[in-house]
Amino acid sequence: MSNISLEFPDGSKQEVAAGIKPAEVAASIGNSLKKSAVAAKINGFLVDLQRPIFQDAKIEIITSKDAAAVEVMRETAIFLLSAVLKQKYPEINFGEHQVNDEGFYLDTDKADAQVSVDELEDLKDRMQKLIAEKPEIERQMMDKKELAEKVQADPYKSALVAAYDNVQIPVFKLGDFIDFGEKALLPEIKNLKYYQLLSVAGAYWQGKSSNPMLQRIYGTAFLSDEDLQADLKRRAEIKERDHRTIGRELDLFFVDPKVGAGLAYWMPKGATIRRVVERYIIDKEVAAGYQHVYTPVLMNLDAYKTSGHWDHYREDMFPPMDMGEGEMLELRPMNCPSHIEIYKHHIHSYRELPIRIAELGMMHRYEKSGALSGLQRVREMTLNDGHTFVALDQIEDEFKKVLQLMLDVYHDFAIDNYSFRLSYRDPANTEKYFDDDEMWNRSQGMLKAAMDDMGLDYYEAEGEAAFYGPKLDVQTQTALGNEETLSTIQLDFMQPERFKLTYVGEDGQEHRPVMIHRGVISTMERFIAYLMEMYKGAFPTWLAPIQAMIIPVRNDLHLDYAQKLQDDMRKLGLRVEIDSRNEKMNYKIREAQTQKIPYTIVIGDREVSDAKVSVRKYGEQNSAEEDISMFIDSVVADVKNYSRTGKE
Amino acid sequence: MSNISLEFPDGSKQEVAAGIKPAEVAASIGNSLKKSAVAAKINGFLVDLQRPIFQDAKIEIITSKDAAAVEVMRETAIFLLSAVLKQKYPEINFGEHQVNDEGFYLDTDKADAQVSVDELEDLKDRMQKLIAEKPEIERQMMDKKELAEKVQADPYKSALVAAYDNVQIPVFKLGDFIDFGEKALLPEIKNLKYYQLLSVAGAYWQGKSSNPMLQRIYGTAFLSDEDLQADLKRRAEIKERDHRTIGRELDLFFVDPKVGAGLAYWMPKGATIRRVVERYIIDKEVAAGYQHVYTPVLMNLDAYKTSGHWDHYREDMFPPMDMGEGEMLELRPMNCPSHIEIYKHHIHSYRELPIRIAELGMMHRYEKSGALSGLQRVREMTLNDGHTFVALDQIEDEFKKVLQLMLDVYHDFAIDNYSFRLSYRDPANTEKYFDDDEMWNRSQGMLKAAMDDMGLDYYEAEGEAAFYGPKLDVQTQTALGNEETLSTIQLDFMQPERFKLTYVGEDGQEHRPVMIHRGVISTMERFIAYLMEMYKGAFPTWLAPIQAMIIPVRNDLHLDYAQKLQDDMRKLGLRVEIDSRNEKMNYKIREAQTQKIPYTIVIGDREVSDAKVSVRKYGEQNSAEEDISMFIDSVVADVKNYSRTGKE
Repeated sequence: MSNISLEFPDGSKQEVAAGIKPAEVAASIGNSLKKSAVAAKINGFLVDLQRPIFQDAKIEIITSKDAAAVEVMRETAIFLLSAVLKQKYPEINFGEHQVNDEGFYLDTDKADAQVSVDELEDLKDRMQKLIAEKPEIERQMMDKKELAEKVQADPYKSALVAAYDNVQIPVFKLGDFIDFGEKALLPEIKNLKYYQLLSVAGAYWQGKSSNPMLQRIYGTAFLSDEDLQADLKRRAEIKERDHRTIGRELDLFFVDPKVGAGLAYWMPKGATIRRVVERYIIDKEVAAGYQHVYTPVLMNLDAYKTSGHWDHYREDMFPPMDMGEGEMLELRPMNCPSHIEIYKHHIHSYRELPIRIAELGMMHRYEKSGALSGLQRVREMTLNDGHTFVALDQIEDEFKKVLQLMLDVYHDFAIDNYSFRLSYRDPANTEKYFDDDEMWNRSQGMLKAAMDDMGLDYYEAEGEAAFYGPKLDVQTQTALGNEETLSTIQLDFMQPERFKLTYVGEDGQEHRPVMIHRGVISTMERFIAYLMEMYKGAFPTWLAPIQAMIIPVRNDLHLDYAQKLQDDMRKLGLRVEIDSRNEKMNYKIREAQTQKIPYTIVIGDREVSDAKVSVRKYGEQNSAEEDISMFIDSVVADVKNYSRTGKE
Repeated sequence: MSNISLEFPDGSKQEVAAGIKPAEVAASIGNSLKKSAVAAKINGFLVDLQRPIFQDAKIEIITSKDAAAVEVMRETAIFLLSAVLKQKYPEINFGEHQVNDEGFYLDTDKADAQVSVDELEDLKDRMQKLIAEKPEIERQMMDKKELAEKVQADPYKSALVAAYDNVQIPVFKLGDFIDFGEKALLPEIKNLKYYQLLSVAGAYWQGKSSNPMLQRIYGTAFLSDEDLQADLKRRAEIKERDHRTIGRELDLFFVDPKVGAGLAYWMPKGATIRRVVERYIIDKEVAAGYQHVYTPVLMNLDAYKTSGHWDHYREDMFPPMDMGEGEMLELRPMNCPSHIEIYKHHIHSYRELPIRIAELGMMHRYEKSGALSGLQRVREMTLNDGHTFVALDQIEDEFKKVLQLMLDVYHDFAIDNYSFRLSYRDPANTEKYFDDDEMWNRSQGMLKAAMDDMGLDYYEAEGEAAFYGPKLDVQTQTALGNEETLSTIQLDFMQPERFKLTYVGEDGQEHRPVMIHRGVISTMERFIAYLMEMYKGAFPTWLAPIQAMIIPVRNDLHLDYAQKLQDDMRKLGLRVEIDSRNEKMNYKIREAQTQKIPYTIVIGDREVSDAKVSVRKYGEQNSAEEDISMFIDSVVADVKNYSRTGKE
């Protein structure tokens, strides 16, 4: 065999025989490196220490102290998990597996049944036992054809082998079990100590919903116990705050890809929250001078050609429907053209401006199925949308009015974890942004002046503006750490041009209005997901689906009194339920707390005789006796003040 | 020429020469018939008196006393209208024309501009002048080829000629003007006396929206002035009550086929009415134990295959959308499968029944474009829908509860012009109705017993039931006289089978629930159209988009006071506007009445100094001074009592 040249991180080079293994390179450098090495990087790619090198390359030896060793831990965990699964279920097949920043996953297909989350403990026990046996993993390079024969019983592995370009593929064997791929496993299995199996979920083979559904087992591994424990704690916290968890536990909504990917079903309790939010924002907007309308979710495709959406946004739109008679209908991806129709329905005078059209407008966007997530990323959504038509010199004043509305709304929902982003054009990018220096400078200046005037902190982002004008976004974060836009105010100089909008000025001439797109609480889906996470499911009284749960100590003695209390409260518009099931009182109280109901009321002999109630507020350990009418007043005050069991 | 045989209405027959004209036949019978004849029926088809007859036929001479003569009047009016239009606009082209029970129409294409409603008077003047000239209409049979050449400048007439099967076509000439077709014109034009041109509207050539839009001129003609005047009066009344007229005059909604046929845009005032109605019915249903939800307007097509809609109802459904990855989505034509998803999301116990799921559910139905009408027949609609899942022995009780809810709702809206229709299966039709005698007899008996029990009048309609069970419909009428269903309660034994719905009974076994479909106020579109017509646009205070209009006598002196009053009333949730335009006070008062606003308030010096308001209620001629707080109380009471300016 000929020689090859290896280049080390310090730039030094060395001639070695082709076919040398990284383990041998490490040993040649020193005994301590030989012992601590866990893998190597060849030209930046992580490979096993036993992977022979046949060509000139840059090499870096990875030790157990390097961050990159985490990947080796996780690959090793996947390998061992696969091995014990094969041991436990000889017929099992394996789909893809992956190591990522979060941990790892392994797709499995157990024809007759599913790998259950309940057996993760057993699988970990088996992995521990296997590790304790200090097994030897045999590594070799294998001919693609030979490997294909060995895995032919497994359709997924066969497909994965077939997809390889190389003729020689690294193979890892443990007894009868065989795995393969360009990856690194620990030289000594016993060093895999800090790992955990986490969860199981369905996943389509190669991510396509027309393919078979496999079981994906999630896990993670770290270099230290400290890292592992910190990660598990973080996961528990995220899970607790994740709106999908809260939505399931409180029975607020569900999404079922079998009846429609990204299409949310709002269960009665979630629907109640949404209804309260919808009525709140409509009333707030009407009081602020908005005219609420209803417009169709469908529109002639021509409108989106005029608006430019069909040219620039088509891949996010649903397929058009051919209605016959030359009519193509499109599920709207935006409400702007609909509100433009409303504006155009009459001739307008400058005296009417600003004209504020608003709607809870349902829209449809074709999100990739992989991007869908609970209520946060859906395909059907209802936007708290509004379009204000103003004269040029009204922009700053109207911008401030919208901002003030937002701040009022945030206050009512107790939202304070957000930041303002002012987005400008990139003046160098004349392709994206329409060319009118004066317009851009003037309008950007107006927004900035308004923010300064109102004493609000913000950061400026050049090149983040929409192509049609500058904007202000209010940014926040989901429980999973994704940045999200809560509210937006966007100036638009383009659509009024494209749709030839006019108003008659004081001079009797036609003028072009400016459009301001604005959303205060984004879509109902995204906003209520956001609230779920922010409140950790404990909605303040005015939003809680059940505001008070009444628990009679004994149905035969106290149910009448409970029902009278419920009637009295319902007459005031309060949402009150009675738990009269045949369960222990403490169980019912505990469940009311689990359901995060603001007020739990227990009615016993003393309460009936004294016309009192025993009130336990959510999150408190003890109950307190209260006068009935005072208690009812305090719940009514909660609702009126958007407050939480008397606080705030 | 050979002979042919004519058979008269009395059965007698006569041999005549082929080519004889009906005028000659009439003359041969007698001079009085000759004089009074206006047309003939040959084998039941109306023809001109000068149309030669070439084959054996049944013949009937039509005189000016016969009802069929109305058609001759209308055809003659169309002919004369065409002639004067051609005179006025030599370049004009003509599309189709038609005579029907309502009158007639004529489609015109005036390339450069449109025939306007304002020139109908001029056109009638020209017709009168033409009639006064006693012109002679020349009738002849013309070769199809020759006629085609004569009309070749007019693309529509050319198309109409080309569509003829016959080689010889009857042609009517008046000077240069030429018309054709199998029709009868008056022998003496001067006898056309009682006719009117009514309106102009757009209509697509041959009814296809991909074709050019023509102007359709509507008119009518009668045999007597009495008939004409009665018809014009009826039209005025219908028009005044027609929700499309009211919708336009009060600016409540519009439909624009250019952006989507049958898709309604609710203007702010119409949207306000709808919002009040929506909140009302949701609150009413929640109080009655319904759980309101939100479910997607889209669903996997498979669900409608399971439900049977795709098999039985496909032509009323929108085209499915291919979303890729094997997913076909369908705009739902019904909400039942969506609510079934909600039901199936949990396991249910008999203790929970009845489970009442409700929603303002948006649906889409592919109505033929010709059937669309304002808000009454649309393609996108939002149904006040509800599905109750009950055990068999709960049907009667639940049916009564739904009925009571309906009666309460009718009372609040002051609806009393309806009738109950109980629809049963036709026992002989075993194809349509599923075969279970006991089920049908028992359930039909339950409905009947419930109606009798509640003392309600109803009529029974055998064979009108849905295929899945018996139903009760509440029938009413539109302004145009069409029968319409306001509310419905339908038992359904099929869907629970098809979707395999279950609940766990007291016995611990799985049982099949029965579904009750019910709509209390039908769709928002249809119901609010119904209310517009029933109230003739004068909505009661609680529904009125503007409940009070405040008119300051002088803005400089009385506007502050007006604004304070507006603020006070708005804080109570009332919808109050100020008319501060530079217009005369009486003009503003008149306009408030035209807009049918319940309360018009005038604020002048005396009102300001005495803390009073001058109140004029809708429909009354005079104003009355009232104490401010008493006035506000009375408006609040109106809203609370669903009443009309203190009445009812």
